[in-house]
Amino acid sequence: MDEDGFSLKQAHVCIVGLGLMGGSMAMALRDHVDYLTAQDIDPEVIGNALTFGAIDAQGDAGDANIVVLATPADHIIQFIPTLKPAPGALVIDLGSTKRKICDQLDQLPEDVIAVGGHPMCGLAENGYINALPTLYRDARFVLCETARTTDRARKLSEELVRACGAQPLWLDRDRHDYLTALTSHVPHLLNFVLMRLAMEVAEEDEVLFNLASGGFDGATRLARTNQMMVSGIFGTNAQNIRSLTTRLREHLDHLEAILEDIPELEQELNDIVAARRQYTADYGERPIV
Amino acid sequence: MDEDGFSLKQAHVCIVGLGLMGGSMAMALRDHVDYLTAQDIDPEVIGNALTFGAIDAQGDAGDANIVVLATPADHIIQFIPTLKPAPGALVIDLGSTKRKICDQLDQLPEDVIAVGGHPMCGLAENGYINALPTLYRDARFVLCETARTTDRARKLSEELVRACGAQPLWLDRDRHDYLTALTSHVPHLLNFVLMRLAMEVAEEDEVLFNLASGGFDGATRLARTNQMMVSGIFGTNAQNIRSLTTRLREHLDHLEAILEDIPELEQELNDIVAARRQYTADYGERPIV
Repeated sequence: MDEDGFSLKQAHVCIVGLGLMGGSMAMALRDHVDYLTAQDIDPEVIGNALTFGAIDAQGDAGDANIVVLATPADHIIQFIPTLKPAPGALVIDLGSTKRKICDQLDQLPEDVIAVGGHPMCGLAENGYINALPTLYRDARFVLCETARTTDRARKLSEELVRACGAQPLWLDRDRHDYLTALTSHVPHLLNFVLMRLAMEVAEEDEVLFNLASGGFDGATRLARTNQMMVSGIFGTNAQNIRSLTTRLREHLDHLEAILEDIPELEQELNDIVAARRQYTADYGERPIV
Repeated sequence: MDEDGFSLKQAHVCIVGLGLMGGSMAMALRDHVDYLTAQDIDPEVIGNALTFGAIDAQGDAGDANIVVLATPADHIIQFIPTLKPAPGALVIDLGSTKRKICDQLDQLPEDVIAVGGHPMCGLAENGYINALPTLYRDARFVLCETARTTDRARKLSEELVRACGAQPLWLDRDRHDYLTALTSHVPHLLNFVLMRLAMEVAEEDEVLFNLASGGFDGATRLARTNQMMVSGIFGTNAQNIRSLTTRLREHLDHLEAILEDIPELEQELNDIVAARRQYTADYGERPIV
């Protein structure tokens, strides 16, 4: 591609999958692109988006200048080989894991440009019904180079990210997957596992949930998400998740070993509390409800 | 005690430990009791509470009709044997674990009445500085019988709980400790362990926290609490915590084993998501920030 290709302002953008992330991107991009379309398996969602003017029309990825893949990560991997992008088009995805998706983007035809993407924002509950035009605002948006990433791909994808209100952060696909396994996938797994155990204990003693409060709610809230999205994440990043839970179990072993050794326990907890408070001071605190 | 003892309205209430829970109770009880005093190791906290009228005076537990023990659980256990309550006084505590505390309350002189207590409310950050007069409102407040629980003790403690805006829930001490190990102590432990691992990984890769978002924040938020309080909880309920983490590890093993078996994983996650959403529908959703 030369530098005289289409600009974002002139582009036909087609979003594949109009859920929380795709829907919020449509709303955010509305006035920044020429023509905005979407595909979704649910005709009602497309109907809603048309009624409220979030998109111009139901579209086809093959007709677009910019294709945004916004379905669950495992679906994106299966979908890319079936995609026939127009020559010169930019393909970018919003999948939560990047190694396997970028490996597929590498295989796109040479007349297509492609970048892996992952916006660092979300809500506990998914779906177009929860989409917000401000969801991306000030969020970090990871971009990963692929074999199809040219200077133009880099420039155009950054422009797209900024048009949504987010900040681009270029990162290697494997580094992304390891780090987000810690910041997102393992937290999801722990929320699910704790809720699973609570279901079991609630069957043994019906008083259980009457004793739950904000601490329990916050530690299980991610289990309110969409299981299809989470399955896609877990399935495509299993190795990193397992590698980190192995490390997590070691820390759990250690803390459990000193539960009754109050001076050592206090010292250990003190370090963690200090780090968590510093984190709040440095990065703020994002409630997720 | 006969039924003609003092009423709550006529009582001198002394709160031992003016942190988040004790401070909030002082604020809530202000207009429901005759004379309200407090003890705290921090003279500044007492000074503040006096300045803003949250208490009438710095007090002594030995002079009060109702003594509220509101220090960390391990401290309460050490404190009870040193306590010299006035004859006929009610002793109640707010400790997060009940077996070891109630075992101590059982040993109080026979002319004293006593009930174990645990209000099911809180905030991520502790201390008098975060106290709120509305903290107890609509919260469940567990009450545990001790060898010193008479009809009058039962009636007076329920009156105290209702005056704070909370709802009394009588529960056996061991049943309380097992269930709250699940709803509160294990969530705290998991939040701490995840934050501890994050500290380690952040040392290996400084980008880590730039990728964190609401999911990570929510899954580590309890690590912002007061480590003294948490140490007291962990130390006095270690057996129940270990028993539940053993069960938790089994669920973790199971989910990890099916991470790549998408149909089975989706089925499993689906059940958990449904239960978590039902929980929100039944009990509401309490953000903790």
